[in-house]
Amino acid sequence: MALVIYNSLSRQKEVFTPIQPGRVHMYVCGPTVYHDAHLGHAKTYINFDTVVRYLRYRGYRVLYVQNITDVGHMLDSGEDRILKGSQREQMQPMQLTEYYTRRYLEDMDRLNVLRPDIQPRASGHITEMISWIQRLIEAGYAYEVNGSVYFSVAKDEDYGKLSGRQLEDSLSGTRVDVLDEKRDPADFALWKNAAPEHILHWPSPWGEGFPGWHIECTVMSTKYLGQPFDIHGGGVENKFPHHESEISQAESASGVPFANYWMHNGMLFIRGEEMHKSLGNFITLKQAFERWDPMMLRFFMLLSHYRGPIDFTEESIGAATRGLERLTNLWYSLIQRLPSAPEGEVDPEIAKLVETTTASVIASMDDDFNTPGAIAALFDMTREMNAIMADRDPSAGSLELVRTFMAGFMEDAIGLQLPSEDSGAGADKAGALVELLLETRRELRSAKQWALADEIRDKLTALGIELRDSPDGTTWKYV
Amino acid sequence: MALVIYNSLSRQKEVFTPIQPGRVHMYVCGPTVYHDAHLGHAKTYINFDTVVRYLRYRGYRVLYVQNITDVGHMLDSGEDRILKGSQREQMQPMQLTEYYTRRYLEDMDRLNVLRPDIQPRASGHITEMISWIQRLIEAGYAYEVNGSVYFSVAKDEDYGKLSGRQLEDSLSGTRVDVLDEKRDPADFALWKNAAPEHILHWPSPWGEGFPGWHIECTVMSTKYLGQPFDIHGGGVENKFPHHESEISQAESASGVPFANYWMHNGMLFIRGEEMHKSLGNFITLKQAFERWDPMMLRFFMLLSHYRGPIDFTEESIGAATRGLERLTNLWYSLIQRLPSAPEGEVDPEIAKLVETTTASVIASMDDDFNTPGAIAALFDMTREMNAIMADRDPSAGSLELVRTFMAGFMEDAIGLQLPSEDSGAGADKAGALVELLLETRRELRSAKQWALADEIRDKLTALGIELRDSPDGTTWKYV
Repeated sequence: MALVIYNSLSRQKEVFTPIQPGRVHMYVCGPTVYHDAHLGHAKTYINFDTVVRYLRYRGYRVLYVQNITDVGHMLDSGEDRILKGSQREQMQPMQLTEYYTRRYLEDMDRLNVLRPDIQPRASGHITEMISWIQRLIEAGYAYEVNGSVYFSVAKDEDYGKLSGRQLEDSLSGTRVDVLDEKRDPADFALWKNAAPEHILHWPSPWGEGFPGWHIECTVMSTKYLGQPFDIHGGGVENKFPHHESEISQAESASGVPFANYWMHNGMLFIRGEEMHKSLGNFITLKQAFERWDPMMLRFFMLLSHYRGPIDFTEESIGAATRGLERLTNLWYSLIQRLPSAPEGEVDPEIAKLVETTTASVIASMDDDFNTPGAIAALFDMTREMNAIMADRDPSAGSLELVRTFMAGFMEDAIGLQLPSEDSGAGADKAGALVELLLETRRELRSAKQWALADEIRDKLTALGIELRDSPDGTTWKYV
Repeated sequence: MALVIYNSLSRQKEVFTPIQPGRVHMYVCGPTVYHDAHLGHAKTYINFDTVVRYLRYRGYRVLYVQNITDVGHMLDSGEDRILKGSQREQMQPMQLTEYYTRRYLEDMDRLNVLRPDIQPRASGHITEMISWIQRLIEAGYAYEVNGSVYFSVAKDEDYGKLSGRQLEDSLSGTRVDVLDEKRDPADFALWKNAAPEHILHWPSPWGEGFPGWHIECTVMSTKYLGQPFDIHGGGVENKFPHHESEISQAESASGVPFANYWMHNGMLFIRGEEMHKSLGNFITLKQAFERWDPMMLRFFMLLSHYRGPIDFTEESIGAATRGLERLTNLWYSLIQRLPSAPEGEVDPEIAKLVETTTASVIASMDDDFNTPGAIAALFDMTREMNAIMADRDPSAGSLELVRTFMAGFMEDAIGLQLPSEDSGAGADKAGALVELLLETRRELRSAKQWALADEIRDKLTALGIELRDSPDGTTWKYV
């Protein structure tokens, strides 16, 4: 079976063939660190983290680069996001970006998003950007005016090949006074002359200034991954003009392709609407974590295909919560049954079940990282395992087979951290204390001290620990 | 009372007067991220973290910058540390520095070392370094030869003013082939021509190359803190040639002072010897954390004055462990007694004790951050509080006074995290379970079920939970 990726460039699914066999060089546009990350960031970075994880699960050596935009990201109004944030927070720009970079990484850690192998900061690559811009000027694709440098879109016949969009849409994002100096309104800035109030600026052949947003990603991706590299990912909202411009900058003067596969993930909506501060539906991850478990949020994102949009509603969140609970309940059952499970052969029905589930999740994921398909297969397996365990007491080897598969696929391939084995079993301090209480309760019951035994049960329930008595003894779990 | 700092530049204690009243701009040389941090790093960064914390405790607004050296740190052999590490680990240089930066920050977090406000990477400031070197050439303090640029030490009359050292010592750290091209063997590199095998290099007016180590710190400190700024800190082993050269680079061409106060912390020894891989006494922090509690390591470092050396031996570690235990035992006693402590006036003896201890720790810390002096005052207070609590049952208000002082000074001013109040009291899950067991034990004892009651006690002891019965009831703590 071959891994297939939907390539936004060809607008079709293609068999994935990396440049170097067994290795993948991959880039994803990182955040502009002027504000806390929000639920939309969670979708993007969980989507691409799952791509990286699954590629590694399939045996590829992945070099994953994701940048930090800490300079030069213009708002539609022409304002600089970093500058605006640093005025808002009364911090130096680099102090602001340090602060929000740290908070972004904390959020990603909680979502179990692996850190990229290289996380270049835009402000750290000014020299390389200047060199690149100089090459574009020499090749006739860019021109200088009043200390700023613009890319001449009309010069690049291929401009628009990714997004199918061109001139008419690229007018937003520029101030009127800037428009005047461009040869063509569609041209975009490679280097901007620094206005006097601009704090972040560097010397260049064109005077003091700072780089445009698009050039940052072209330079940082190719510096660490070479040109061409395998996969470029990012949010669909950045396809135009950001990704389109990245391609032009990279390919026009060099004639060398930029990235072989372009992957775009769909947007996150809140009750059907785009998230906007003005709509009052803006949810930062710090806020989200106060209310929802990070693993549930990750599971929620994986319940939809990465290319599609996702709608964040009470209902869809509720469905995700219940879905993840079904899987973790199976996990708890396995690790609680394991210590007392009988010896013996592997149950053939369970062996078959794990085999077909494994094939099924791989088939889904190989088909353009179809996580909802893979999760559906996990649900099927859960239902069948629950039926088997209600019917008989499978051998330890059989249970271990399911447990190993779940840990391997869910944790490694799609990044869903399962509850620690301790939390249900008793290896940690709280677990050991619960076991000690259960033992005391057993002895009280043997001594017919029913009232005291029931009191222990009730108080454990009050602490969120649920007991289940059976002829084989008592099991417990956190609820 | 005034805060006094020993200034390495004047070789005497001076009253601290910041450039802007109430604000402190401070820089400390950060690590070269080609290997895991070791115990020596812990001493340096705990020492300066304590300076930053105490300045903030005293009401200063501190802007703390600490760099990451991810390029151009030459070994004595002339090898580049980053390049050597990336060959060893088979990683790209920036992947290597990303990896070790992350591990360094993890280690610092565990030692409760606050993150700097700005943590600039050397590789991100090449443009600024090139501009700075150009100014030095124009002013006649530096010269180019074969694509490298050297600082001409003989041109700067003040060279040596920090360390008292000059020419004869600065020969180490350079390769023989490099020596040949220098006008004077004492000159040091500002920019190095990149040898073909060198992966990390940038374009410059002198061809492809990379910056010298010393120029990095001059440029990054002044970029974010201005010139002059207040405090420059670092390990005494970097006084010469690193800090000496930083000063020359900053002051020679500009005539403006660089940093007003220089602070140097003493070295860490392992059983009397310097730590060296060849001596087999090299202890990384990751290794240390497997064996010792990070807060105990921090306490150990604070038991000596920052300027002095410290000897890491079984005995000195044992003494630190016992010392920290005395303080945390008082803390546990306070938070356990508080819920049942009587109402009423504040005990005048305790009020006086807190007052004198507060004055004493501030007097010690104001005297060039004398942490051992402050800790001695905490020990005195502990002894007296223990005597008072053995003698009588102080009011809740009295206990709260001591608790607040301990939390404020130990946690905020010197960064010693006290055990969570939950861990002794019972607000967390394990604590609540212990309380439930104690309640069950009480009921068993009322019912004269002695055997079962004693069993609970023994099993709790086995779990590391020690009970202490008194006429007022039973208290417990983790041991």
